Amino acid sequence: MPNRTDLFEPEPDDTREAIMKATYDALSKHGYADLTIQRIGDEFDKSKSLLYHHYDSKDALLVDFLAFMLERMEGTIPLEEADDADDRIRIGFDHVFSTFLGGEQSEFNRAMTELRAQSAHDDAFREQFTKNDRYFKQRIQNIIEEGIEQGIFREVDAEQVATMIHSIVQGAMFQSTTSTDPELEEIRAELDAYIQSRLLADD
Amino acid sequence: MPNRTDLFEPEPDDTREAIMKATYDALSKHGYADLTIQRIGDEFDKSKSLLYHHYDSKDALLVDFLAFMLERMEGTIPLEEADDADDRIRIGFDHVFSTFLGGEQSEFNRAMTELRAQSAHDDAFREQFTKNDRYFKQRIQNIIEEGIEQGIFREVDAEQVATMIHSIVQGAMFQSTTSTDPELEEIRAELDAYIQSRLLADD
Repeated sequence: MPNRTDLFEPEPDDTREAIMKATYDALSKHGYADLTIQRIGDEFDKSKSLLYHHYDSKDALLVDFLAFMLERMEGTIPLEEADDADDRIRIGFDHVFSTFLGGEQSEFNRAMTELRAQSAHDDAFREQFTKNDRYFKQRIQNIIEEGIEQGIFREVDAEQVATMIHSIVQGAMFQSTTSTDPELEEIRAELDAYIQSRLLADD
Repeated sequence: MPNRTDLFEPEPDDTREAIMKATYDALSKHGYADLTIQRIGDEFDKSKSLLYHHYDSKDALLVDFLAFMLERMEGTIPLEEADDADDRIRIGFDHVFSTFLGGEQSEFNRAMTELRAQSAHDDAFREQFTKNDRYFKQRIQNIIEEGIEQGIFREVDAEQVATMIHSIVQGAMFQSTTSTDPELEEIRAELDAYIQSRLLADD
């Protein structure tokens, strides 16, 4: 999940962004179940009536929060720091796993797992999370296709491999937020071994 | 997740098993958030006071339900139908993915995702789910170690590969219960490609 510094300006003057920042902080503090619009308001510097003016319910606000995260996600993963597809994909993994391992945003990640689980019985959450998934998978797929064009990767089914990588990262995120023993270093190391044996190996 | 037929006797006479079966049915019908001990009682043929006698709360009952599932899981995955480790692991994947794809227990799987997400803020759930994870990972690891002994698999770090496979399956389960577009067939196909390139390939 993107971190707070990447997602928000230090002093957002745009109302929506200020609401989103307050939502991020309230989610990190209270989790999903104990979140209320009132508690989001407590993190918000401007008039609380703005919140009620813009959103009918906590869940409507949270669906918009997910859409906002998707809009901002583009800039948060530093893939562009390398030319070769294999380096780009590793930079992406390092970035994503650092957010699971780092601890500083673990409370926010826990809240995101709770939020995602709401999708089991809420169509609006389910549709928005599916959009976010598609974006993430498409970015991975683009890198794999670049790697194939660059002659670095084998001619695999790029969409299928991207779907797999997405599932691995999602499993790791789920582990990191719901297990006492998430073994994230092992998953990170095995991701490299997977890329090596499935995409690169031709020695 | 194991299915209802594999988990329960048709007419359990043991009280705990009868309670567990009622819990399975109530979870499938109501999900986690709307579950109450009263609603579990509605699925229960015996005296409802038995439920209150055995369990202090809905969550205490559900933690015991997870422990029960772990006890019963041993018999539910038909790994023993093959001798070779590569066949055994594929039989396991087919079994697990059939429960995601089949639809008949999709309501139960959704409830399990909601339950798992409770672990984000509940230590008792978190500890029990971690036990269940460890059992599942250990079984995968045993098959990989057998495959290495049989000379079928490469000499990989069996624990690391097992952790990865567990993360993939968990990501797939999470997708199947929280996405409008879970792409489970792609994940299943890519699991075969992963096993092929990481464990088998030596051609």
